[in-house]
This record gives sequence, C-alpha cells and structure tokens, in this order.
Amino acid sequence: MSINGRLPEEITAMLNAAGSRRAFLRNSAVTALAAGALAGCKAGGQQTQAKTPNDSDHSGGTTAPNPIAATPAAAAEEMDRMHEAGIKAFPAKTEGKGNQVLAPRMDKDVKVFDITASKIQWEVEPGRKVEAWVYNGQVPGPQIRVREGDRVRINLKNELPESTAMHFHGLEVPNDQDGVPFITQPPVKPGASHTYEFVVPNAGSHMYHSHHNAAKQVGLGMLGAFIVEPKQPRPIEKADVDYVMILNDGMHGYTLNGKGFPATEPIVAKLGQKVRVRYMNEGMMIHPMHLHGMHMTVIDKDGWPQPAPWKCDTLNIAPGERWDVIINCNNPGVWAFHCHILPHAESPHGMFGMVTALIVEK
Amino acid sequence: MSINGRLPEEITAMLNAAGSRRAFLRNSAVTALAAGALAGCKAGGQQTQAKTPNDSDHSGGTTAPNPIAATPAAAAEEMDRMHEAGIKAFPAKTEGKGNQVLAPRMDKDVKVFDITASKIQWEVEPGRKVEAWVYNGQVPGPQIRVREGDRVRINLKNELPESTAMHFHGLEVPNDQDGVPFITQPPVKPGASHTYEFVVPNAGSHMYHSHHNAAKQVGLGMLGAFIVEPKQPRPIEKADVDYVMILNDGMHGYTLNGKGFPATEPIVAKLGQKVRVRYMNEGMMIHPMHLHGMHMTVIDKDGWPQPAPWKCDTLNIAPGERWDVIINCNNPGVWAFHCHILPHAESPHGMFGMVTALIVEK
Amino acid sequence: MSINGRLPEEITAMLNAAGSRRAFLRNSAVTALAAGALAGCKAGGQQTQAKTPNDSDHSGGTTAPNPIAATPAAAAEEMDRMHEAGIKAFPAKTEGKGNQVLAPRMDKDVKVFDITASKIQWEVEPGRKVEAWVYNGQVPGPQIRVREGDRVRINLKNELPESTAMHFHGLEVPNDQDGVPFITQPPVKPGASHTYEFVVPNAGSHMYHSHHNAAKQVGLGMLGAFIVEPKQPRPIEKADVDYVMILNDGMHGYTLNGKGFPATEPIVAKLGQKVRVRYMNEGMMIHPMHLHGMHMTVIDKDGWPQPAPWKCDTLNIAPGERWDVIINCNNPGVWAFHCHILPHAESPHGMFGMVTALIVEK
Repeated sequence: MSINGRLPEEITAMLNAAGSRRAFLRNSAVTALAAGALAGCKAGGQQTQAKTPNDSDHSGGTTAPNPIAATPAAAAEEMDRMHEAGIKAFPAKTEGKGNQVLAPRMDKDVKVFDITASKIQWEVEPGRKVEAWVYNGQVPGPQIRVREGDRVRINLKNELPESTAMHFHGLEVPNDQDGVPFITQPPVKPGASHTYEFVVPNAGSHMYHSHHNAAKQVGLGMLGAFIVEPKQPRPIEKADVDYVMILNDGMHGYTLNGKGFPATEPIVAKLGQKVRVRYMNEGMMIHPMHLHGMHMTVIDKDGWPQPAPWKCDTLNIAPGERWDVIINCNNPGVWAFHCHILPHAESPHGMFGMVTALIVEK
Repeated sequence: MSINGRLPEEITAMLNAAGSRRAFLRNSAVTALAAGALAGCKAGGQQTQAKTPNDSDHSGGTTAPNPIAATPAAAAEEMDRMHEAGIKAFPAKTEGKGNQVLAPRMDKDVKVFDITASKIQWEVEPGRKVEAWVYNGQVPGPQIRVREGDRVRINLKNELPESTAMHFHGLEVPNDQDGVPFITQPPVKPGASHTYEFVVPNAGSHMYHSHHNAAKQVGLGMLGAFIVEPKQPRPIEKADVDYVMILNDGMHGYTLNGKGFPATEPIVAKLGQKVRVRYMNEGMMIHPMHLHGMHMTVIDKDGWPQPAPWKCDTLNIAPGERWDVIINCNNPGVWAFHCHILPHAESPHGMFGMVTALIVEK
Repeated sequence: MSINGRLPEEITAMLNAAGSRRAFLRNSAVTALAAGALAGCKAGGQQTQAKTPNDSDHSGGTTAPNPIAATPAAAAEEMDRMHEAGIKAFPAKTEGKGNQVLAPRMDKDVKVFDITASKIQWEVEPGRKVEAWVYNGQVPGPQIRVREGDRVRINLKNELPESTAMHFHGLEVPNDQDGVPFITQPPVKPGASHTYEFVVPNAGSHMYHSHHNAAKQVGLGMLGAFIVEPKQPRPIEKADVDYVMILNDGMHGYTLNGKGFPATEPIVAKLGQKVRVRYMNEGMMIHPMHLHGMHMTVIDKDGWPQPAPWKCDTLNIAPGERWDVIINCNNPGVWAFHCHILPHAESPHGMFGMVTALIVEK
C-alpha cells in the first residue's frame, strides 16, 4: 500500500521526526502510567514533565505540575496513553484499500470498466472487520477516472444475494442509463449482469453508487468516485496532488475512504505544492471537515465551478454533495484534518473515525 | 386533483410509457416471485431475464443470472416486488391536497386572506392518516401569492384547542405584525381571531407558520408558502413552471408538500422549458435534495438574489431556509428527485418519504 | 452585568414598553386561568379578549372567542402562562457571564493572556447549574481580541483532573503552536502549564478550544472566541455593535454564549445602526439561526471575506464554522432571534435554549 507514492513506514518516520518529543513523551507516559498504577491509593503519582522545543519565531513550555491524587492521575495518564497509542499507530496497516484507480480496458474507442458487486469482510480499523457489500472487493469501490466526452461502458455483475442497480450521481446521462429500478431499468437480479454505456457528458467530481435498497447497499459500501477530467482545465484547478476523500457514516462507522483513524491515509505534499481535495459525502449526516494550519479555497460544487472561489477552513459537506477545494501548502508540518463534529473524531479513548492528516514536507 | 394541469392518470400513463419494460418487468417479477415461493427449498427458482432497450447513443443489457438458492432468491424477489409496487403506485391518490393557491378577496385595495386553523385527519400516504393541525384544511396551508407592495390582510381564526399566532417568516413586516406571542402580540386564544395587515415589503420565497408552541404546531402542519412576486422580475427568474416544494420531517414523517412517496406530486415540464423550484424547509433536519439527470442553478437564498448564481445537483436545505433554483429541462425522461439522506427516501420496502420525480416530456 | 452597556432592568423595561398589552395580557391570562380552573367541568370558562394596537400602517385585532370546554381551556391557558413567564423573565439574571473581553498584559511588545482551565459549576439558566470545564471561570472562555500581526503569548495553566491542550481554530500558526497532543506537542498534564506564542497570522473570527479529549472538554465549556482585527478593515465590515455569538449544544443543553433562554443576552442597537454578528458553532449539530424583521448580509466565512456578500434571514452554521454577518437595523422593535430547529428553541413550556432578541430602538 502506498500513500501518494510513499510507504506507510516513511509516513511513520515523518510523524516521529516531527519531534523527538514524541518518542520521549511516549516513554515518560508509559513510565508515569506504571508509576501511577503502582502507587495505588497514594497521592503524588509520578508526573510527566515535558518541554516543547522553541524556535526563533515562537516559544512554548510545559512546567512541572503540582502533585495530585494518584488515582485520578492514573486515569488521566491512561487516557493520554490511549490517545498517544492511536496517533503512534497512524497510518495503521489494514487489509484492503479502497478508491484505487481502475484502468479501463479499451474496446475500440470505448473505455470499459468491469465491476462486480459482492459481499466481503472489510477491515475498517486494525482488527475490526465488518460485512461489506462492495464493488471489486474494495470500499470505496474503484475510482473511475475518465475525460469529458469519453465513451464509457460499465459492465456490472451482481454477485450479491439481492438485486441492485448503479446510478451515476451527478452525471447527466440519458435517462435509461440513470440506474433507478422500475423507473429507468429493471433491477439487476442476483447473479445477473447489466451494462451501462454513455458518452461522459459533464466534467467534475461525481460518484457512482447503488440506487436500489440504497440506504442499506450504499451504507454497506456500494459507492465510488467517478471523476471526469475536463477537456480544458481551468488554471485554478491545477494541483500537484489530486485527492478524493469520500466521507461515510453508515454501518461501518465514521470513515474516510472506507477506513477509520488510525487506518486512514494521510495526504502528503511538499511545501509550496497545491493539493486538490475532492470531498464526497456518501453518508447520512453532514460532516464539516476542518483543516488545521491552512485554509482551503472552494472551487467546485458538485462538479460545477463556483462563480467566485471562496476561502474557509471548515467546509460543511452534506450527503450527496461534492465540494472541490485547493489547498496552497505553505505551512510545513503534520496538520490534523478531521470532521469537526467532535464525536465523529475523538472519544476518551483517543482519536478515531473521521481523522487524517495533511503532511506538508519542508 | 391536477398536477401542473395534468391528471394523475396521465402521469401514470407517462410513467408506464417510459418503457414497456416496466409492464413486462412487473409481470415477470410477479411470475418469478410466485415461482420462487412455490419452489420452496429447491434451488434454481425462476429468475427474471430482462433487456433494457438501447438507443443510438448508448446500450445496456441484463443477462441471465446463475441459478441461486430459492429462499434468498424469493426474499430478493419480494424486496423487488415491494419496490416496484411503490413506483407503480406513484403518483398515488390520497385525500386532501396542500399548498393550493388561495385567491384573495379584495377589500378596496387590500388583498384579504381568510385562514382558519383547525385540527383534522390528514392522509399522508394511501391509507396512513395522521392528526394534523392545519390552515384551511390542508398541509401545507394554502399558498399565499402576492406582489411586492401589495397591501394584505390575513384574518386568522383559531379553532384549535390551544393558542396560536402567525409569523411571516422572511417578510420584513412592522414589529407588531411579526406574530410572536408576548413579544409582539398576545397569543390568539382558542376560539379567537386575529388580524394581520401590512404592505408586503420584500419579494421572494417566504413562509408563514405558527410561532407559538411551534415545535408542535408547525410539526403538525401549521405552515405554508408566502410567495411575493417582485415588481420587476430579473430575466434569470423567468420560468415555465413555478413549483413550491416544502420539506418536512415532523410528526407526519418525511414529506414533500405534506405527502410521502408514492403520494408525492411529480413536477412535469416539456423539453426545453425552465422549472423554478422554491425549496422551503419547515422541518427539524437538513435535507440535501438531489435531482437526477440535470443540474440546478441556484438563484435566490431566503428570497434574496445570490450575487452570482451557481450550479449544483444536490442542494442542502436547512430548517427555515428557502432556496430558489432554475432547472433547464434539457434531458427528457422521468428523473428521480429526492432527499439524499437515503433513510429519508428508501427502505427495504421501497422508496418512501422525500421522493418525487421531474418528468421532462419530449 | 451589562448588555451592550445597558442594565438588564432597562432591557426588561423596553420589553414591557413594547406594549402595555403585555402587562394587560399577563393579568387577564392569570384571571382566565383561575376562572378556568375554578370552572371545573363547566363549559365556557372565562376567555381573554385582547386587541393589538393599530398604527397608521397596518391594523390587527383579536376578537372574542367562542366558549369552549373549561378543562382544555385551562390547559391552553397554563401553556400560555408558561410561555409568557419565560418571556417576562428575559433577560434573566444568572451567575457568571462568558465571552468577556480579556485585556492582555504587555510584556514588551507581546500581548500576554493568562488562561487557567478549571472545573466549576455554571448557571446555564436561572437555577440550573451544571458541571463546566472552563477557561478563567466562564463559558465561553474570555474573548481574546487582537490585531493582525500582533505577537501574542497564551499561558495556559491546567487545573483540571485530566490533560488538555489549546488549539487556535482558524489561525494559521506554526505547526508546533497548533495544540494537538502527540502530533504537535505533549499534552498539558493536570497541574502543568504550557505557553503558546506566535505572531497573529490572519484576520477574522476565530476560536480557541481544547483539542484533547475534545468531545468532552469542548462539550463542557473549554472554548472561546479569538477575534483578529484586520490591519485595514474593509468598509463593509464597519459596524456600531460587534457581537460574538457562540452556539453550543453539548452537555449544557442548547446555549448562546453559554446561557439558555431566558438567560441569554439580547443585542441592542439604535435605529439606523449596523450590527455585526460573528457566529461560531462549538457544538455537534447544525444551527440555522433565524433573525426576524431584518435580513443579514453575509460578509465572512471562517474569517475570510466572501467574494460577493449575500443576503439571507436564516443562516445555517455547522460545527467549527464561523460566519460574519452585518445587520442594517432599519426596522424598530424587539425581534426574536433563534435557531430554526424548533425543538432547540421552544417546548410546550415556552421558549428555551437558542433564543435571544435583537432590540432596535427608535
């Protein structure tokens, strides 16, 4: 598994290099916890004493705490330990990776995508496997990426125990390719196949997903990105990193691209680069995504250019919406990037769910 | 009951004409279901075999399924049967129609609207009747449609068992006409009447509703559209069809204009026409409304022009908000149109709640 | 406690002066209630008969009701009595006031803010005290208000039983001042202190809050406004009244600046003045804030100028978002101002939670 072309081990190294204080802290916290636990009912458990490094531009420091009761202190240390363990584990390895670009095979001038719907076990976080209904064995399904005006054919094979259909959310296809059972086509029965074919009509960040028993089928993973590159990109949409982020909150919990923190994937860019994030919400709730350290310039809504791009650091994404933003990576460091509905991102056991990081390398 | 001037029977005919495959499917599904049920524990229940019609621009096909176990197949068929039954029933007849334009009577130069609040039974979907607190016997209440600068008088008669008051949401009326008990007026007691009168100050898509014990009273149906046509319409707001769509999610379930699918009303337009949809949310949740097949151009927010109209296919509408959009009907067919919080639109029993269709006739 | 420089008593007087009908009503309601209760099972309990005052521009009237059954009438009267009692009590005195501007002390050219996190009891509404985790003894924490380019130092002292950290939400600070434990700094242990220092990088309406076990810590009150005034204000952002409104919906219930109605604070302006409201959502839900009587012009999102200001009367504010609006106070009176998710603002017992008023004095 690679992350923007990097191995998870490299990311971990970067995170650790972000401060030797991390390693230090880890050790001292473990020590403190042990000391606190051993101290039993005695007051004055061992406390951490840490100092953040200063630089010429700013200073910070953590001074020694007053002694407090051992038991609450031990509880506090245990909480910190769990928080740290989560962050240490990031990006955690799990089985399966979603949203992988699917190269089409060509049938003359038609780009053909073969997609099979089936039922699998999906590892959302290390050790947590869930039932998933998926396209080509991954959540989100494979990323389809074509160009405005391309002719595409999608061969959908249904290996699920119930009927399904595929809707191209945001694409202005002819009506009989719209994928709504009993309105535009018959349902695709278990074991059956169905072919969709159309000329890609409009550029932008779109989606494909089930439109049959969809609250269940999409909730279980039958969704993916359908990116249409424009014939003539606008200058504002040129980016060094093009990242699709699909939000979900169904039966798999709170996820970004099918994984919950710490199994989410960091976005990595170099100082001065531009990152395009294509947010897509396939869940049932809003998710106001908040980026630390830098703002986002909103350029597209549902694949359509905003008449005047605008800036924000927290972007509210509702179910079915897509929003494209450009981040000018001018602030180096490891930046938290998460849903700002805090119970979607953090518990007393640490960060989880809709949390990742944008890493800007010097 | 007419829908944009058409009878429900005509709509049903259009839906059926949308493909003889619909009738075919229906028959084959019923056959299959019966076969599956009869097959009992035997493997290889009868399966449907359907082919979507192709046109010169695209092709699609459903091929024969592999034999699968009879019992899950029967369950799958039963699910499909329920889904199809819902769509076949659309637009379903129910008693009562809300949001009917109320012609004023003139008292000299004053447009007078007589509105009585009372308690009734309201049929949300075929056979499902609920207690409703209503204006003039309908949910939503009658549509008030006047012109900027008109002098209007609303005679509110309260036949409910509790006090009420009427607020003109979005209209910048003088304070003592604002309808907030104990701040701008006394409550209107059971059996009492109250008169509101003002010169209509600002154009746009507004609402009227109870502002007393409102979580209950609005939830039960005391709400309606208050449309103010501008003295000088902008070119962008000219439309062939002007449709008010009031979203609700209170005690009556998920509704569009007081009805749940399949009793919702399709919007009908001819190819090349423009449809204006005036979304209004009188509920307690957001509803990101998604239109298939065509995009929407957002022109107004809360009755105020957006400085630069922008495009989308999924528009998030929060409680109290109004958003006006223009749809350029350039893609013929029957298009699903629904809230994209999927549990507001579909269950294993089929589509329900916040679902309707935009029908673009060739 | 002063409200925009006025005593609560003065506000109450204004509200009462808004109509002698208020006092009249109060008396008659009590009489009616007593009559209704005394009437027992007899039909025809005493009813109120009220008349709203007319002015030359509009007229309104409440006519005599028909007799109705005494017991439902008594229930209706009791409901009205509770509603009135809430409004009469507004703005209710409670112990503690949040969001008070904290004057910095200067250390050479550095603006220093000393902030202590501790656990207290906080009075949300008259008589309802809750556990709160707070900065400097108030909810929201003290308002930090500095200027773009200022050098600031925040000395955070942690007197809580668990670790914490401070994040400057929206400020593009250097990474090691970002306040995310185990990513940019060690957690600040119970009893410990930590210093943040940076040059304020970007103007606008920002926030500071805990970023450690934040679903709990922010939910309990560890949040505040961090306002950065620009070096060169734009003409559109000049206002006579500058009001920060922090929305919350955590363990303290539905609050505006840490208080629920009737303990919320009205905004007071004179006719013709401009009010800037800086909305900030520190909760877990959206809150579409609705102002009666006048519209709002949206000028900033998350501290960044909107390229083209736009108008609305209901503004949907998601967790983590900040929206700045300008209200041109051209309509005199006491105007309800509330979240339009009605169960966040009203119950059968009257208004509560996210309700306040904008008072425009002639």
